[in-house]
Amino acid sequence: MINSIDTNQLLTILDLSGVWAFAVSGALTAMQKRMDIFGILIVAFGTSFGGGTIRDILINRPVFWLHNETYLYILFIATPVAIIFRNYLQYLRKALFFFDTIGLGVYTVIGMQIGLTWGYSPMLGICLGTLTACFGGVVRDLLCSEIPLIFHREIYATICVVGGVAYTLMMYFGVSENVNVLVTMAGIIFTRFIVVRYNLSLPAIHLHDNMPHA
Amino acid sequence: MINSIDTNQLLTILDLSGVWAFAVSGALTAMQKRMDIFGILIVAFGTSFGGGTIRDILINRPVFWLHNETYLYILFIATPVAIIFRNYLQYLRKALFFFDTIGLGVYTVIGMQIGLTWGYSPMLGICLGTLTACFGGVVRDLLCSEIPLIFHREIYATICVVGGVAYTLMMYFGVSENVNVLVTMAGIIFTRFIVVRYNLSLPAIHLHDNMPHA
Amino acid sequence: MINSIDTNQLLTILDLSGVWAFAVSGALTAMQKRMDIFGILIVAFGTSFGGGTIRDILINRPVFWLHNETYLYILFIATPVAIIFRNYLQYLRKALFFFDTIGLGVYTVIGMQIGLTWGYSPMLGICLGTLTACFGGVVRDLLCSEIPLIFHREIYATICVVGGVAYTLMMYFGVSENVNVLVTMAGIIFTRFIVVRYNLSLPAIHLHDNMPHA
Repeated sequence: MINSIDTNQLLTILDLSGVWAFAVSGALTAMQKRMDIFGILIVAFGTSFGGGTIRDILINRPVFWLHNETYLYILFIATPVAIIFRNYLQYLRKALFFFDTIGLGVYTVIGMQIGLTWGYSPMLGICLGTLTACFGGVVRDLLCSEIPLIFHREIYATICVVGGVAYTLMMYFGVSENVNVLVTMAGIIFTRFIVVRYNLSLPAIHLHDNMPHA
Repeated sequence: MINSIDTNQLLTILDLSGVWAFAVSGALTAMQKRMDIFGILIVAFGTSFGGGTIRDILINRPVFWLHNETYLYILFIATPVAIIFRNYLQYLRKALFFFDTIGLGVYTVIGMQIGLTWGYSPMLGICLGTLTACFGGVVRDLLCSEIPLIFHREIYATICVVGGVAYTLMMYFGVSENVNVLVTMAGIIFTRFIVVRYNLSLPAIHLHDNMPHA
Repeated sequence: MINSIDTNQLLTILDLSGVWAFAVSGALTAMQKRMDIFGILIVAFGTSFGGGTIRDILINRPVFWLHNETYLYILFIATPVAIIFRNYLQYLRKALFFFDTIGLGVYTVIGMQIGLTWGYSPMLGICLGTLTACFGGVVRDLLCSEIPLIFHREIYATICVVGGVAYTLMMYFGVSENVNVLVTMAGIIFTRFIVVRYNLSLPAIHLHDNMPHA
């Protein structure tokens, strides 16, 4: 059933969902900072387009939003909708987390897919997927002069890398591309929910000497 | 009269003025941070070249300052001149604001123009113009470890977008390109002066729930 | 003797050493922030690959680490090794400084070399070398939410520029390329040690008027 969909179509649908999700995530962060409508739009733009832009620049691919205006239209719809329904998003932190996580899963898989399609190895594909997924959040934090959510971002990156490895393994075991895309994406989203819900983290690397800041 | 000038020439002159203005703006910020001469030069470089660099990278155009050394020469003249005359720039905040605003107007129009010349739609042109104008300031703030002037930057971006829309409208109504370039630029500069002078701002979007920081 | 080595081979060896040195520098900074292993890996990645990536993007050269996986393998070896031996790096600040300085010297020369090879003028080569050397540290500071070490970074940049000028002069005086590469690199590393050891700095540019922050 799912294999009857063209993988490119599936990726396009997911890509547009990711743009939507990260635009909402950016808009919510900007509203917390009490920005005006253009400020919100710009943060949504940076959050939503930042990751894919750096991916496209790195592999010298035409920058996606400059060659398909659909992305901008989605941004211009998603942002006002997020503004209008902001008070229905009662539990804003949860909403932000929800959209952020969806964007994370979608962008990791898409970045990785594009990397593989362009002939890069799975290792480089994982790097590209992780960059695509994480860079938008970095831009959002910088634009909002947030103290960069480094601990969050770590969890981000860790989950992206693990998702990328899972994708590679499934690929080698012959899982069909569509199933692989959806399973990896769902896995990343699910894992992040679990990680945050149960407050999981990898052990931090401690230094024995306690010295002043370098 | 003004139509007898080649539009490319006009844009080149404006471009060089923009480089000068943003270089001074960067140098003034760096001097406020008591940097040494190389530090000042680097901040001037980032402020002045940052926006155009990201624009050229995005549309895969040769990066402007790597293909025309005039820009670097202007930087190397503008920065020491700003240092020498720093105490004549008595009201430094006003001087900074003045040069910053000129750079803003010039870079918006040039970014937009280049976008249109390269075959992008007006909507994408406006995005490119806004990016070109605003990115240098972001780099300056990051290099100077300023708390990013997000409220300023919002005004920035809002005015750039409005200027870009005005340019598009005048284009459709058949205003000659040179006049359009100059009017838009003057309009952006004028608007920013008014906005800051009368402390205007768009209403911020408020959230009803007051929750802790996400 | 040294001239019997192909300059490209010499540069490759130095490049890989630079990647190693900056990876360790990034990993040490991340460990000071008590990050987990993936966080450390990502900071090492950004520190080590940031400068060369921006250089390659600027001159539209294929991004180095996407076209030669050796760099990633070095990263994947250097980072765990730095983690394992972290407590042997007793004086961490000194170790960080040591690796950072080596990376600085290597990257300046390589950035400059690549710029010249691609047909850019010495002036642009110096700019590219300085960017290559300094950008990784900027990325590291941003990812670690360090207050950007702007004063350090100035010394950075100043030394890179001076090193680049020295390289250019030696080139004009007919010094063989290999000797030039090694002498410049050693000079940059030596100068930085001296500068930090004796706490040298260029005079800061003072402003007479003391006004509030713009």
